[in-house]
Amino acid sequence: MKFATRLINKFKVNNPVLLEEPSAPLMSTSIPGPKGAELLAKQSQFSQDYRTIKFYVDYNKSIGNYVVDVDGNIILDTYCHIASLPLGYNHPDMIYNTYSGEYQKFLAQRQSADVPDIHWPRMVRDILLPLAPKNLNEVIVNCGCGSNSNEEAFKMAFAYYMKNKRGREPSDQDIEKAMNNQGEELTILSFTGGFHGGNMSCQTTTHTKPIYKIGQPKLDWPKAPFPDIKRPYHLNESHNIKEEQKCLAEVEKVFKSAKKPIAGVIIEPVMAEGGDKSASPNFYIGVQELAHKYGALLIVDEVQTGGGSTGRFWAHEHWGERADPDIVAFAKKLQVSGLFYKPHLRPARAYALYNSTRGDPIRLLNLRKIREVMDNDNLLRQTERVGMMLKNSLNALSPKYPINNVRGYGTFLAYDFESPEWANAYVREMLKLGVNVGLCGSQGIRVRPSLIFKPKHAELYLDRVEFALNQILSKGFNLAKA
Amino acid sequence: MKFATRLINKFKVNNPVLLEEPSAPLMSTSIPGPKGAELLAKQSQFSQDYRTIKFYVDYNKSIGNYVVDVDGNIILDTYCHIASLPLGYNHPDMIYNTYSGEYQKFLAQRQSADVPDIHWPRMVRDILLPLAPKNLNEVIVNCGCGSNSNEEAFKMAFAYYMKNKRGREPSDQDIEKAMNNQGEELTILSFTGGFHGGNMSCQTTTHTKPIYKIGQPKLDWPKAPFPDIKRPYHLNESHNIKEEQKCLAEVEKVFKSAKKPIAGVIIEPVMAEGGDKSASPNFYIGVQELAHKYGALLIVDEVQTGGGSTGRFWAHEHWGERADPDIVAFAKKLQVSGLFYKPHLRPARAYALYNSTRGDPIRLLNLRKIREVMDNDNLLRQTERVGMMLKNSLNALSPKYPINNVRGYGTFLAYDFESPEWANAYVREMLKLGVNVGLCGSQGIRVRPSLIFKPKHAELYLDRVEFALNQILSKGFNLAKA
Repeated sequence: MKFATRLINKFKVNNPVLLEEPSAPLMSTSIPGPKGAELLAKQSQFSQDYRTIKFYVDYNKSIGNYVVDVDGNIILDTYCHIASLPLGYNHPDMIYNTYSGEYQKFLAQRQSADVPDIHWPRMVRDILLPLAPKNLNEVIVNCGCGSNSNEEAFKMAFAYYMKNKRGREPSDQDIEKAMNNQGEELTILSFTGGFHGGNMSCQTTTHTKPIYKIGQPKLDWPKAPFPDIKRPYHLNESHNIKEEQKCLAEVEKVFKSAKKPIAGVIIEPVMAEGGDKSASPNFYIGVQELAHKYGALLIVDEVQTGGGSTGRFWAHEHWGERADPDIVAFAKKLQVSGLFYKPHLRPARAYALYNSTRGDPIRLLNLRKIREVMDNDNLLRQTERVGMMLKNSLNALSPKYPINNVRGYGTFLAYDFESPEWANAYVREMLKLGVNVGLCGSQGIRVRPSLIFKPKHAELYLDRVEFALNQILSKGFNLAKA
Repeated sequence: MKFATRLINKFKVNNPVLLEEPSAPLMSTSIPGPKGAELLAKQSQFSQDYRTIKFYVDYNKSIGNYVVDVDGNIILDTYCHIASLPLGYNHPDMIYNTYSGEYQKFLAQRQSADVPDIHWPRMVRDILLPLAPKNLNEVIVNCGCGSNSNEEAFKMAFAYYMKNKRGREPSDQDIEKAMNNQGEELTILSFTGGFHGGNMSCQTTTHTKPIYKIGQPKLDWPKAPFPDIKRPYHLNESHNIKEEQKCLAEVEKVFKSAKKPIAGVIIEPVMAEGGDKSASPNFYIGVQELAHKYGALLIVDEVQTGGGSTGRFWAHEHWGERADPDIVAFAKKLQVSGLFYKPHLRPARAYALYNSTRGDPIRLLNLRKIREVMDNDNLLRQTERVGMMLKNSLNALSPKYPINNVRGYGTFLAYDFESPEWANAYVREMLKLGVNVGLCGSQGIRVRPSLIFKPKHAELYLDRVEFALNQILSKGFNLAKA
């Protein structure tokens, strides 16, 4: 440990970093401040991407739950890289890990899919496989993008469907048709409000905002309605159960009336981009039963939800013992992207699922350390506890303030306001108070802290929630709930 | 430099690495050897990916042009991660760079698209923009996968087409249609033999092997024939010119008879996966003129060809001054993936092209060092010279051995045999002699060394080429050319 301390101190001396978390956020400018505005103007000269940047981060100075921007503002981060940051900023164990000497060879050159490192099989087996959801004992790792994970899940579902349908190797005629772009007439069923990425097939299954779909070709694939759940669930149980049953009946109707076979159904345990909608476990089990009844695979998209912030490593664990997905897609918090799948789904031929960079050992080394910290510090339990505290406190604010529809698992939470204007004003107000929060759907807020968010951070957050609400109300926003 | 030497020596002492390149390959087992076979068996238990692995690499021991496998075989690498490895293995400058202290913060946590590092705009401007092809003064960086670069190029072309066609913002009706998966009827034109990746839209534009297309839905997009060029080009000029004109006429016919508008044409300067086919600059300029005449963008896929191994940084520079692509897609040797594009193509709205990891600073730091080494060591010039030497020598072997159709730019070369059996036997024989070569198309060989391949390596390679051919011939393969 002496060596570790020395290395971390070296890192801190080299970089004028905060030595430990501050006691509270501290804002010295608005966002963007003068330096931030200058960087945005610079980047706008040569890239469209500047428009999606919230602020520029001084990664050397950021620490724990606090992100420090280019203008020196110290911000409590409850959005955390769109739910991708597992242990906050510059976690000492993560920094220590970078000095382990294991990274150098993978930094000096990338590993390639055709000639992987001698430790790659062991790394995949020891780091990734212990995370496999029940029965999904095979794994593939791809290029690091959740959209690609979903797309590979579709390809796996199509290949499996055709294998069963043909019952034989493809004929010369099948091959000729494929080479002439006469594709198989197969589809993936998705749900209103779902978000599965920006690739062409993924945006076909995405039903959140027009920006992801407008002006682009799409595949003619079916979608089904998602239940309109009223919160709290148990106080609206009869409405909710009826709603879930109605939607399950719709799913069955889509299967029965489908003009093209449905090879897979894709669903998120919480529709994160689509407004953190979720239903009861019964609904998901119902979807699963219908998928299996009609010969389709159940693909669970855990790109946003996987990795522990729901209080379980996989969000679909909340569905209970009957949960039986065929494929689980992952990315973000897991550092690498890919699929866990049932072994019988393995494509018959090599190169059916392939790219030249199947997995990045650097990110697997990170994941190994993240898991260690999660275990040692009991972070799933902490996340569950802090989440409960947040949820109760947010619900307690509901009668007094225009907050409603508090929902979610663990710290993977959301709440709504009565209008998009309210939500936007609130995001701005919270940032003024030094809290980075993200919009959710059209008029909600996502709570997405990393796994090291403790009760003291939750208290700081809740204090600022109430302060921000009072600020907005004092400016004359209408209190009446929609 | 004393510090640098100390660091590199530390690396070498920590890792039982070869201190410098050996004088020649050295094989002690067949491939896979016993340890390699054991690893393959291990990985086969939990992943389909083991089937596409050639051998496992001891990345600590590999050095320069020599890759060392798990069984201790020292192999001259002329395939180099499917053309993705720019400076060979463990280049001293690359290792030195990993000790610079700049990597740590990006290893401890990934940068996110919404909150990039304070140095990100400067890094993109100073490292990437100097590489911009003429007039393509904007750049976006995405998740590291070439297939995604091509897909984003398509999306950019579609968005641009619709912007011009509509001449206004999308109406409520346009948006409703998009949200109901009634996509725009737009297409991308591609060429027989082209390979643009495995995503659904990309495999639609891929026309190499059935494995990438069979059993999958595809978009109903057009393709055009690619000229059947005879080599050497100048000795078959009248055939070749006629062939190119015929194909250009076909391209025009596709445009004229297209049922759905063609928003873009995608083409590789050398069809790498499709058998290293290329045509004369006149053909590409002809395609460019037709694309622009009919209102489509020219998308040049430089995922395999970009980065210097053709003797120019971009392969399309070989087309001369008239070359005027609208979008150039890159990945592989550039360490990051993305697009250079003409500024007027920038999508009107944010999030039209987006994912949560737009670019990886670690890989940009690598690219900076790679460019430095390329400049200091004059590697483009060396690649041109070594390539010429290889090409001349391979052509000189042609009358005596069944090698034909030698083609390519720089060291980005290929040659054919008379049958797939010949090519397969040759790949095996070369590996026995300690040279890693890759298949090309159905019966060819790709030459894809990294940029540090010197005349002495070329000599070693050519010696083994001749030896391997004699070995195969002595086993009774027919000499008669097809």
